[in-house]
Parts: sequence; structure tokens; C-alpha cells
Amino acid sequence: MTETNLRILLKSRPQGRPGPQHFERSEEPRPTPRPGEVLVRHRFLSLDPYMRGRMSDAPSYAAPVALGAVMEGECVGEVVESHHPGFSTGDRVRGARGWQQWSVAHGSTLIKLPDQDGVPDSAYLGVLGMPGTTAWVGVTEILQVKPGDCFVVSAASGAVGSVAGQIARRMGARVVGIAGGAEKTRFVTEELGFDACVDHRGDLASALDAACPNGIDCYFENVGGPVQAAVFPRMRDFGRIAFCGMVAEYNQDPPPPGPNLMALVRKRLRLQGFLVSDHPRAWKQWSEVGGAWLREGGLRFREDVAQGLENAPEAFAGLLEGRNFGKLVVAI
Amino acid sequence: MTETNLRILLKSRPQGRPGPQHFERSEEPRPTPRPGEVLVRHRFLSLDPYMRGRMSDAPSYAAPVALGAVMEGECVGEVVESHHPGFSTGDRVRGARGWQQWSVAHGSTLIKLPDQDGVPDSAYLGVLGMPGTTAWVGVTEILQVKPGDCFVVSAASGAVGSVAGQIARRMGARVVGIAGGAEKTRFVTEELGFDACVDHRGDLASALDAACPNGIDCYFENVGGPVQAAVFPRMRDFGRIAFCGMVAEYNQDPPPPGPNLMALVRKRLRLQGFLVSDHPRAWKQWSEVGGAWLREGGLRFREDVAQGLENAPEAFAGLLEGRNFGKLVVAI
Repeated sequence: MTETNLRILLKSRPQGRPGPQHFERSEEPRPTPRPGEVLVRHRFLSLDPYMRGRMSDAPSYAAPVALGAVMEGECVGEVVESHHPGFSTGDRVRGARGWQQWSVAHGSTLIKLPDQDGVPDSAYLGVLGMPGTTAWVGVTEILQVKPGDCFVVSAASGAVGSVAGQIARRMGARVVGIAGGAEKTRFVTEELGFDACVDHRGDLASALDAACPNGIDCYFENVGGPVQAAVFPRMRDFGRIAFCGMVAEYNQDPPPPGPNLMALVRKRLRLQGFLVSDHPRAWKQWSEVGGAWLREGGLRFREDVAQGLENAPEAFAGLLEGRNFGKLVVAI
Repeated sequence: MTETNLRILLKSRPQGRPGPQHFERSEEPRPTPRPGEVLVRHRFLSLDPYMRGRMSDAPSYAAPVALGAVMEGECVGEVVESHHPGFSTGDRVRGARGWQQWSVAHGSTLIKLPDQDGVPDSAYLGVLGMPGTTAWVGVTEILQVKPGDCFVVSAASGAVGSVAGQIARRMGARVVGIAGGAEKTRFVTEELGFDACVDHRGDLASALDAACPNGIDCYFENVGGPVQAAVFPRMRDFGRIAFCGMVAEYNQDPPPPGPNLMALVRKRLRLQGFLVSDHPRAWKQWSEVGGAWLREGGLRFREDVAQGLENAPEAFAGLLEGRNFGKLVVAI
């Protein structure tokens, strides 16, 4: 068992695209747990678009990662040594443990994974983790999808979009995905079971008109940019847009302007932004509902696994450009 | 009693600013009521920003006024001849009777004004009419103002804004108006009792920072343009914006872009457009609540009265440029 702890630190704040040059590796001895603490060996690290915001010191809902500090991120791993009564050696856990191979955590900050539920551990970073819970909140609480709604989601093959569309379809909506390229759009219809999926690399406006001939009732916004510009004028009266993220714009400084908002009056639209962290009760709800769907084979997901913590910076840069295919995790 | 009916017809559809050249006068014999109908002599015509939309044939929530047809608008007037059991000669009524001196209406389309309530008839076009009801819906249903909220309203001396601010203040908010020029801002604080009012003709950003040092919880949007651009970045976490109108942009074609919407996620904002016509129950509610406030002197309003129906086109053009001061009506 390695005695060193490889860590990825934030080295500098990017202007525009982040890349490996904004991170640095550091090794230190693996830490030692004190009373109440647990030593965790990390198995998988989640990479998510929100991390771009943590690299910047612009005002945001969360404090930035300090220069020279370990990058923030959720991990699943295994308890190697426990000084907390709630955990034993061998327990599988999840927690916000950062981009590193090992960590010690107070037991109160870790969540134990269910035993023997047939769900791979990494799924607790994706379909049953933060991205899946985000999809659940967006579809049920923010958009309040109703049977018969035309529901559109961008980044439809991604960690959040893939789950959002499947939830909306179970709620009776007609579900249309937006994704980039033939491989992803085929996956969205054939594997995830969406009613349609359009390619934003083609003529998106015409494709949306064909897929949503009566307009769009609900839009789950993950990307911004030209996709948002194509969807916005196609919203129907009393339409709702849930703003989860706008990943296509995270590397643009200054951010581009948005749509003229007079359509909000004319069509009585509701636009609402949300963060899953404001909805603490949704985690348990979704892990029960989504977990049951998953075990009965009614919830599909795909992972894109990068190998080795040292490759996390490059994989993260690719995530912001849509190079991943499915939920991006790093096998540590 | 004049036997002719002066009518103002829509002559052409404006590109940009409307003016008298887009209207034409027409005289016809005054109409004769049939069974079930009522002959109404119009006393006051309401002029409202939404009418700009009716002059255009761009897609909207309501059909445009046809070229050559009488312009749409709400009137109050007096029953001169009744063939409907619900009305008698001398009754005061309101209804969507158009820009003309007389009309016949089926009794079912008219609303009788209360007798002897001490409220001037024209107030049923403003503070107790469509604009007042719009303010009531926006503040109570859309923004859901709470005690302690910092509430900002644009066009604060206008028909909707003046009422919205007074309602929000009764609900316990700190109320800041935005208006154009020293005379209007003074009216808003001294007559309407807002906590503060800032002048959008000055350095609006600094003035808003001073008036709302902790940011803005609720914004009642009437104008768009540079005012919207100044308010938007000052919204607080969980802020709400009710979109009632964007009068500063109605003569711009194409409409200008809006703000980048990533702030919706970061601050968990809710932006919602509304039309008073979607809230039929609010009319009775507000006429009871607002009527009581008005009779006890707790609701202030100001009217800007243009004299003569023939001057309605010029007065309407001024409304879109903020030349009115208070609710604009035409004394017919």
C-alpha cells in the first residue's frame, strides 16, 4: 500500500480555457487519522463543470479554491483505518475529499454507500450522486414537468442531462435531447430512450422545429451559448426554463449577452436558476427513487472513465469542451 | 348631444416610434343600440403602453388591431340608452370600448362602477383598473414580497409602478423607485411615500448602490433598457424579477440583447413574466382591497389628463417616451 498521497493543487487562475498548466502535482506522506477521523483511500474522483467556477475568484455562490490548495471534488473510496464508531475498515464511502489519493475526514462528513445493492460505486458520483440529484430537483421542483409537456434538455448525453430526460419521460413528457455529434444523439435515443435527440453541430433551429413542432414547454439548461439562443424563441406560452449551468460559456470573459427578455411578458415565461445544495432533502428522495429505478433496469447511465489522478486536469479541460461521453470520473 | 361619433383608427403600422401619422380620424353617426345592448357615451379613455403591441403585427399574446379599425382601449363612460335589464340611463360603466366617443355594447361586456364611493370615475382606468390590478398581481402573486425585502420598481411614478410600490410597502418591504427627473423622484418619495427614489437620468448604478446597499430582492420591471441593465447585477441571492413590460424598448427593432443569464444559477434568481389577463380573480380582490385603501386615504395616485380624443395619438407617443407624469388618460 502506497505511503504517499498524490494531490492535484490549483496553481493559477485561468483566463479562458483551463488546462494542465493551471494545476500542479504534489506528493506528501499519506495522512494519519486522529480520534473521530477516518482514513479513506479514494477510488474514483468526480469531474464536474462547476469546478471551473471554483478556479476563479470572481464573485460566486461558493468561495474559490485557494492557490496552492487541493482542488475540490467528490470522491468515492474505501475506509482503510477508522477511529469513528460509524465506520469500519472496508466500508465504502463518499464525500467531498478533493483531487487526491488519500484523505482523512471526520466521520460526520462521510456518507456510507449501501452494501450489496448491485450499483457500482462510481454511480454514486453520477446517476445517484450530485448530478442525478440535480436532475431530480430541476425536473420535479423547478420545472414541475406535467404529462404532455414538450421537454428539452441540452448536454443530453451528459451526467445531468441524461438523468433529467429519463425523469421527465417517466413524468409523462415528450423528451427531446440536444447533444453534439451522431454518436451521442444515437445514444440518447437508443440507449436512454428519449423521444428524439437533435445535433447542435447541425442546423439546430430547423432540427428543433422538426422535433418540437408545437414549441417547447420546459427547457433544462446546461449549456448556454448558441443552444440557448436557438431554444429561447421556441418556448411556448407559460413555458419554464430551469437554469442548471451554461458550460459553453464558462471560459468566456466577459460573458456574452443573453436574449431580450420581453418574451417573458408576451409568453408568460418563468426562468429559474437553482443549485442542488439548496435542496438538502432531495438527496435522500432521489437516492430512493432513482436507486429503485436503477435496480429494476429502468434508469440508464454511461460513464467516461479517465485513468489515473495525474490525468484529471486534462480530462477536466475536455469536459468543458464536450469531449467526454457520459459522466466523467477519474479512476484513481 | 352630438350625433356624430369621432373615432381614432389605426392607419399604418409604425417601424420605431408611433406618432399621429399612424392614426386617422373618422366620423360616423353615433350608433344605435339593439335589444340587449347599451349606448355608452365615453368620458375617459385609458392610454397604456401595451397598445404599442396592438399596433404591430409581430406575433404576440393578442391579435393586432386591424388597419382601418378603431384602436383598442378601456373607457369609462355613462349609459345614455339601455336595452339591457342590468343597466339604466345615467349608470357609470367601464369596458374595452376603444378610442372613440360613443359605442354600443352588449350589457354583458360592461362593468358598472360603484355608486357614491367618492372615487373619481377615471380612477377605474388606473389605480383601481387594469394598471392597479397589474401591480397587485405582480407584487403579491409573482414576486411574493416578504417583510424586509428590498423592492425596486421602475417607472415608479407611472400607473403601475406607483401602485406596485405602495402595495409592496404595505407588505413590509423597503421600497425604492426609479423614475426620470427631479420632479418625478420627489413625487415618488413625498407623495407616494416610497423609502427612496433614484433618477435614471443620473448615475443610476451608484444611486442604486446607495439606495440598496445590500442588493435587491424584488424587482418589478416596467421599462427594460439601461435601467434593467443597472438593476440586474444588483439582484441578491434568491431574488425575483416580475416582468410586466419593457416600455423603453417597444420602439426598438430589432430588440436589443438582454443580460447574460448565468447569474440565474449563481444567485438562484427567478424571472417571471405575467399578464393581468391571466389572473381574472385578481380584479375583484384588488378592487376590494385597493378600494378600501383608497377611501381611507392610504393609496395615492396621480393622473395626467390629455384633453380631447383628437389628441390621443400625440399623448400616446409621449407615454412611450416617459413624457406623461402619472396615469395617462384622455378626457373625451
